[in-house]
Amino acid sequence: MWRPDRADKTPLYQQIVDHIERRISYAELPPGSALPSERKLAEQLGVNRSTVIQAYEELRASGLVESIVGSGTRVSRTKWGIAPSHTPNWRQYTEGGTFLPNLPLMRRIREATSNNSSIINLASGELSSDLFPNDIVHSLLREQNFNEHLGYDDPQGFHPLRKSLVSSLKQYNGIHTTESSILITSGSQQSLYLITQCLLSPGDAVAVEDPSYCYSLPMFQSAGLRIFRLPVHHDGIEPDDMIRLYRQHRIRMVFLNPNYQNPTGAILSESKRKRLLEAAALLRIPIVEDDPFSLTAFSGAVPPPLKAMDTDGIVLYIGSLSKIAASGLRIGWMIAPQSVIGRLSDARQQMDFGLSIIPQWVAEQLLASGRFDDHIARLRRALDQRQEIMVQSLSDILQNKVAFSPPQGGLNIWCKINRPVDDSKLLEESIRRGVVFVPGSVYGSEPGFIRFSYAKPRLEDIPAGIAAFNQALGMM
Amino acid sequence: MWRPDRADKTPLYQQIVDHIERRISYAELPPGSALPSERKLAEQLGVNRSTVIQAYEELRASGLVESIVGSGTRVSRTKWGIAPSHTPNWRQYTEGGTFLPNLPLMRRIREATSNNSSIINLASGELSSDLFPNDIVHSLLREQNFNEHLGYDDPQGFHPLRKSLVSSLKQYNGIHTTESSILITSGSQQSLYLITQCLLSPGDAVAVEDPSYCYSLPMFQSAGLRIFRLPVHHDGIEPDDMIRLYRQHRIRMVFLNPNYQNPTGAILSESKRKRLLEAAALLRIPIVEDDPFSLTAFSGAVPPPLKAMDTDGIVLYIGSLSKIAASGLRIGWMIAPQSVIGRLSDARQQMDFGLSIIPQWVAEQLLASGRFDDHIARLRRALDQRQEIMVQSLSDILQNKVAFSPPQGGLNIWCKINRPVDDSKLLEESIRRGVVFVPGSVYGSEPGFIRFSYAKPRLEDIPAGIAAFNQALGMM
Ligand SMILES: Cc1ncc(COP(=O)(O)O)c(C=O)c1O
Ligand SMILES: Cc1ncc(COP(=O)(O)O)c(C=O)c1O
Repeated sequence: MWRPDRADKTPLYQQIVDHIERRISYAELPPGSALPSERKLAEQLGVNRSTVIQAYEELRASGLVESIVGSGTRVSRTKWGIAPSHTPNWRQYTEGGTFLPNLPLMRRIREATSNNSSIINLASGELSSDLFPNDIVHSLLREQNFNEHLGYDDPQGFHPLRKSLVSSLKQYNGIHTTESSILITSGSQQSLYLITQCLLSPGDAVAVEDPSYCYSLPMFQSAGLRIFRLPVHHDGIEPDDMIRLYRQHRIRMVFLNPNYQNPTGAILSESKRKRLLEAAALLRIPIVEDDPFSLTAFSGAVPPPLKAMDTDGIVLYIGSLSKIAASGLRIGWMIAPQSVIGRLSDARQQMDFGLSIIPQWVAEQLLASGRFDDHIARLRRALDQRQEIMVQSLSDILQNKVAFSPPQGGLNIWCKINRPVDDSKLLEESIRRGVVFVPGSVYGSEPGFIRFSYAKPRLEDIPAGIAAFNQALGMM
Repeated sequence: MWRPDRADKTPLYQQIVDHIERRISYAELPPGSALPSERKLAEQLGVNRSTVIQAYEELRASGLVESIVGSGTRVSRTKWGIAPSHTPNWRQYTEGGTFLPNLPLMRRIREATSNNSSIINLASGELSSDLFPNDIVHSLLREQNFNEHLGYDDPQGFHPLRKSLVSSLKQYNGIHTTESSILITSGSQQSLYLITQCLLSPGDAVAVEDPSYCYSLPMFQSAGLRIFRLPVHHDGIEPDDMIRLYRQHRIRMVFLNPNYQNPTGAILSESKRKRLLEAAALLRIPIVEDDPFSLTAFSGAVPPPLKAMDTDGIVLYIGSLSKIAASGLRIGWMIAPQSVIGRLSDARQQMDFGLSIIPQWVAEQLLASGRFDDHIARLRRALDQRQEIMVQSLSDILQNKVAFSPPQGGLNIWCKINRPVDDSKLLEESIRRGVVFVPGSVYGSEPGFIRFSYAKPRLEDIPAGIAAFNQALGMM
């Protein structure tokens, strides 16, 4: 993001004028494009609103931009007053396409966090940088000679990484598999994307948990899927609900996040896992088991994954380093029957030609390093401590205004507000007070729920964030 | 790829039995899955066919697999003779989905090169590993302390990389832009994918060069686009053809590869560039300028990119490090008007949550290192030399059986065979003789064309590859 240079002798407003002029002449802002409102631009650039007003006046005077009451400031269509516009109607293009944009609330949260680095972030389901294995990664890069071939990768992903995963899946998850059944993807996200794009067709019915991370992803709608709900209880979904959805709608796939479910934190009980797998086998419905959190279990103990009990090849298992090492590695994996892996890796070639070798090599070194185990132990302790601080803050500050039951792992606490509130108003009020969280409606829940993440903010910011939230809630 | 261990005392056939048994019990090969033919598996594993026959017999005897005349060997549906199958009908899933699989010829080429590392590869439009800036990358990883934050990245890509690109685009391509108009993607491939998925709708008409790389990509069909052809002449497409296609079909976008066009090697002349841009502006048709090869120009001289002349924001410019540094970095970029960049980076978040920071950091260091310029100079000389060897081989060995005119850059020579041949038969015959190339039909050309790439094989293999091709051609 460009910002004016306060050390420069050119007045701030003039720097802004020059910058916008440059962007117009490079055709980054073609004729007709909207400029941000004065208030918003001032916020983005960290200058007074009057500075922006002065810059816009200057630009209007030169004929480069025009302001129309009610529709804001735009780049003039008759640029420099000479030629009529020849710019494509970009709006028609950006509003078309089969792939839907992100949810407005998600975009708002991202905007709030990227424009203001001092905002307290209780929204991102992501580790704080001191929880990343930074030291290990940095020393790997320095000390282990990277010496891999830099050509197009194997469509299924870097072979040594798949080999290391075979061992760690056995050790940590009790899953037995071989290299040829693993596809390396850009996080769990790309595994989900490939499944929705390549194995399902528009009009297909699928079942997802309610609430669920899947609702935050327009990719399900983009693929034209009909989505049916499996309510999440404290011990996960009801297998009978799945059977009922199959009878009524012939659901073709079920998406589950059985450990520390995002957002509720629920763990699917072991007995339900068994019944679910039996029922899915009888009905021949594939289950997608999205499992990014199991290694965060504070005590280390979680029920065995569905995949570990799957002898019929009905489970597509998805894992990731994002929530247990570093999201910026963008390393995830899927385990599936051979024919599925073949189809998805072929399609992935078309989309991006595979992942870079370098982060795959780093991931492989990390898993094989012998220091991974220590890292996970440290991570568990740190998350436990962070959760405790958040639970304390919620109890002390919000008291009986919210209800929650903290899970024994994961990155989130799911809170019910004990009275009706307007999700997006509460979010705006909170952003104004310097804190951001995810409203439950993003996950498809009924109004009045909040997901607070404790993995990303600085420890001392957790109570401050909850206090700011409390004030915002007081305004509702 | 698993291979039996010849040092192991267990007989080879038994190792194969154990391996397949394991994969069946891990549900990687669910009931009903097809096993490779005996011949094919023998080839893949590098063993005698009789060894595989023995292994399959053993598996049949135990009831784990069954062979049905005409449909090959499959995993038994009644596994261990106990339960009826509960496996989902994976075939229905893998054959569904809106995203189409790769072209069979492309899959055949990939299979041939991955099963046999001694095959002479005149097919991959990729640099040989000695042309990669390996030394620079390896020493960067060792010496420059990687110290970046490992969290989710900016949706537009690593900011320092975008900043370096602003300078190198100006220096090498004469393109003026700013960081906020750049989106970093997983090679050019992902830029093309995002454009077809997010800016166009099913049924939209688009124009692509004939022949063209675009035909090798089912992504255009997957997006439901209607594709119209712009024939490529020695100096590129005819602007008038574009105008005609607009009148007839209201084409909504034009895809061009103006420098060392893949596969023909054509350069769009400067005068045509101007006329094309004027016509596209008048008709308000966006142009996608896919430009992976311009820095390979042996002499350094190519006409200015369309983007450098684009004052109306009608060009979406795509670049990549794949053909000038290393494809395994998976670093590409798109320059576009702000609103387009915003839409595409939002969608990309949904698909893979962005690229890993690490290869972006490497790319940034590489571009900024001051050694990039030397690397490019060395690359140009090496490609020139390689092309000369191929031209010599074609002239000496194939003589007047083919016609071609070598371009002054790029990685490929486009040959016309001077009599009618069957593309896929010629490919099979060549694979049998140890050489692989891309038949022109992959790029949508009429039969009898071949794309030979000279960037990947060892120098001494180029004449040997052409000789093997000559023998194959003799069999037609
Ligand atoms: C349940 C679940 N699945 C998948 C993802 C995607 O994560 P990544 O692509 O970084 O692995 C997330 C991230 O929040 C998640 O919560
Ligand atoms: C014209 C053209 N565009 C795009 C690509 C994709 O390359 P990458 O995604 O590696 O940048 C290729 C690769 O062969 C190509 O030839």
